[in-house]
Amino acid sequence: MNYKMMGRFHALILAILAFFMIPALIISLVGGTAKTTMAFAASMALTAAVAVLLARISRGAKRDFYIREGLICVGSSWIVISFFGCLPFWLSGEIPSFLDALFEMVSGFTTTGASVIANVEGLSRGVLYWRSFSHWLGGMGVLVFLLALLPPGGRNEGFTMHLFRAESPGPEVGKLVPSLRKTARVLYLTYIALTVSNLIFLLIGGMPLFDAICTAFGTAGTGGFGIKNDSLASYSPYLQNVTTVFMLLFGINFGCYYLLLLGKLKNVFRDEELRLYIGVVVCAVTLIAFNTRHLFSSLGETVRHAAFQVATIVTTTGFATTDFDLWPTFSKTVLVLLMVIGACAGSTGGGMKCSRVLLLLKNLKRNITRILQPSRVQVIRVNGKTVDEQVVSNTGAYLAAYVILLIASTLLLAIDGHSFETNFTAALAAMNNIGPGLDAVGPTCNYTVFSPLSKIVLILDMLAGRLEIFPILILFNPRAWRKK
Amino acid sequence: MNYKMMGRFHALILAILAFFMIPALIISLVGGTAKTTMAFAASMALTAAVAVLLARISRGAKRDFYIREGLICVGSSWIVISFFGCLPFWLSGEIPSFLDALFEMVSGFTTTGASVIANVEGLSRGVLYWRSFSHWLGGMGVLVFLLALLPPGGRNEGFTMHLFRAESPGPEVGKLVPSLRKTARVLYLTYIALTVSNLIFLLIGGMPLFDAICTAFGTAGTGGFGIKNDSLASYSPYLQNVTTVFMLLFGINFGCYYLLLLGKLKNVFRDEELRLYIGVVVCAVTLIAFNTRHLFSSLGETVRHAAFQVATIVTTTGFATTDFDLWPTFSKTVLVLLMVIGACAGSTGGGMKCSRVLLLLKNLKRNITRILQPSRVQVIRVNGKTVDEQVVSNTGAYLAAYVILLIASTLLLAIDGHSFETNFTAALAAMNNIGPGLDAVGPTCNYTVFSPLSKIVLILDMLAGRLEIFPILILFNPRAWRKK
Repeated sequence: MNYKMMGRFHALILAILAFFMIPALIISLVGGTAKTTMAFAASMALTAAVAVLLARISRGAKRDFYIREGLICVGSSWIVISFFGCLPFWLSGEIPSFLDALFEMVSGFTTTGASVIANVEGLSRGVLYWRSFSHWLGGMGVLVFLLALLPPGGRNEGFTMHLFRAESPGPEVGKLVPSLRKTARVLYLTYIALTVSNLIFLLIGGMPLFDAICTAFGTAGTGGFGIKNDSLASYSPYLQNVTTVFMLLFGINFGCYYLLLLGKLKNVFRDEELRLYIGVVVCAVTLIAFNTRHLFSSLGETVRHAAFQVATIVTTTGFATTDFDLWPTFSKTVLVLLMVIGACAGSTGGGMKCSRVLLLLKNLKRNITRILQPSRVQVIRVNGKTVDEQVVSNTGAYLAAYVILLIASTLLLAIDGHSFETNFTAALAAMNNIGPGLDAVGPTCNYTVFSPLSKIVLILDMLAGRLEIFPILILFNPRAWRKK
Repeated sequence: MNYKMMGRFHALILAILAFFMIPALIISLVGGTAKTTMAFAASMALTAAVAVLLARISRGAKRDFYIREGLICVGSSWIVISFFGCLPFWLSGEIPSFLDALFEMVSGFTTTGASVIANVEGLSRGVLYWRSFSHWLGGMGVLVFLLALLPPGGRNEGFTMHLFRAESPGPEVGKLVPSLRKTARVLYLTYIALTVSNLIFLLIGGMPLFDAICTAFGTAGTGGFGIKNDSLASYSPYLQNVTTVFMLLFGINFGCYYLLLLGKLKNVFRDEELRLYIGVVVCAVTLIAFNTRHLFSSLGETVRHAAFQVATIVTTTGFATTDFDLWPTFSKTVLVLLMVIGACAGSTGGGMKCSRVLLLLKNLKRNITRILQPSRVQVIRVNGKTVDEQVVSNTGAYLAAYVILLIASTLLLAIDGHSFETNFTAALAAMNNIGPGLDAVGPTCNYTVFSPLSKIVLILDMLAGRLEIFPILILFNPRAWRKK
């Protein structure tokens, strides 16, 4: 195991984290209390100090880096940044319990948006900014950000590919351009451009600048931390609709935007995953609008709430405009289904991902055909390209890991004694990085109801969901740490 | 499509069904009302008449039979026997609605045990016998019974293998002896011997003969229809314990009993599926007994109820001695987990089957190892034998089909407006052929709460669960019916 190289890697990640704390520090300096300012300053200093220390210790690291080192780094770096990232919450005293602060930070970085804070309006602006910014950074991925910064030189292409693959959602990783570093840059530039557009649309609607920045961060990362106690319910219908549209846009594979830029419109419209995504959204909005039509006064209002809720759940954002826990069971079940499906691969959204659902459906269809015609050899095609059997097999294993993790989490949460619906949807909401579930973790509730053990389970679920299970399983697998 | 051969096949199945109605007719003649006797006589006559008619029409059928004909026959024959089998319920007026009668019959043949009857003690003995007997026939399979009767001569070995495979639960079919016909006979003889032992143990405990026969049928088929309104709650602890032990025995792969007869004890104890099954049962009983210790007065009583409930759920029987819907959430969640796992392959139990769970876990482990060491080629072994990759891939597809069916059913049931917990566990209980779920379909409730649409959904779920999904998917797949 190349521990020195791993140390260097973590030093870089922590340096980036410390750097990104600067805006929060400035916001606290300008309008916050001395305690919050000190909390950010101390956290920054500590993070930077550990980064420097790690860099010193790991001097003279050999360059050879294997897959397992890479995979361990992915899992551990997310845990490390969550530990250091939650320090401002804890040191400022705004979240007095360290476990709660860690929960909030993991929820932020993994773009879950599940909160342990009942009164978010009581938080300082610096803390609110840091919470929302964590969604933005976690959405596209801190390792992808690191890749975008890496100096050119293809020596570590293999290793960086592993990092990229581990943090990018979806069964297959599409490099947009031959160089991974450039792919990471294209992704981040698209991400910034879309975020800025979202911000502008919110400002046009009259949203205050600070609110608009935080909301745009939460939308872009498909995170869902609000800065109001009622999330987005008190904002105007225009602002809610803008958020609906941008949530859906951030749930699309960023590769599609790159194709748009290149003028390849046909390829975008023929993209099977995008079609499935749009189909799911349109069906879900129609079904829910029909099912909830008696709850609202006009068709416009019904469709607005239905579309917002579908967008917030399918993209795994988790903002709220209304308490869908009060909706009829049918609508709630549609939302649970959307939780499982999730957004597109290569977006900032979570869940199983539409492309995995597509692969599972195609493999199922193939198996039925194979029973009828055993002699016929069939390959699975997506967008006209043959899918590698290894990817199909991995997708099957992913579903198995997903189901096992969901069952195990529901079982562990059940020790607290809440309802089955609460535990099941809390585990689903954490694993799919959504935020709100149903019943005791519904959109108007928060995660303070859980015991420390349950919070630890949910923290691991959120990380497993964001990193698509395997890096977290490997991190806790003794085999990965064994000497070769 | 060889329609004539398919007709002949259905004629045989209906003839068997008519034959098996004789005991119910006699019971009705001896102690029942004229209306019930007439209902059985009319149903028998009609079934036999249709069988004869079909046999006449299909005279001179060609012998060549392909896979798709076989698969279609499996699905359609189960639907056909359910239609004719439910006639006595309907004609006697004891279940006035035809859809309810069909639901009850499908629930019987698929060994689900979900009932639409609130007051079973109001039913006549003939109807009670027929309900319980349907569990026994459906448990080992009516097609397997047909195979056991088939004249020797290997011409249709390929076709019969398909029938056998379709009706025998589990990812792989183990022929016990080279000839399928003999395998079917060995299975049925073991089944009869175990059922008779169960009956004797019940009689020793002082259970009346009729009760003992019906209870033994329900236990053997892992069905769960009771003949008392409180299921087995009012019987003595001894009778409950006997039932616990026999439910667990009927959940074991019958191949193990054959190995025992051959004196191959070592092979039985080394069987990985059996070990997983025993491990799951022991863990579940321990966890539930600990979790429910405050509900009962003594340790013995706690363990008795815990063991009974674990056995009834893991073997997918569905008898009840206590209302586990009132248990703490943790115990209820353990039971939901057991619903999913189910019994062993090659037993009369339902669910995913332990061997599938084993395969999924092994494949998951392999995928993790493959991520760490991509160059290493690994095969999956169960009981020291390499598992065919096709079986691994099928198991993955099975899980996908299972999850999709579960989600779709929960969604359709949600239209009725019951709680998420009710719909989810009702779909699970139907698909895994268990019977009781939680909340509105808990062990003290019944399925009358559902609308006709929901009942149809549940009927299809029960059939899909018993035949392991694919034959039912194929039956409704236009491709299977297309001319070659």
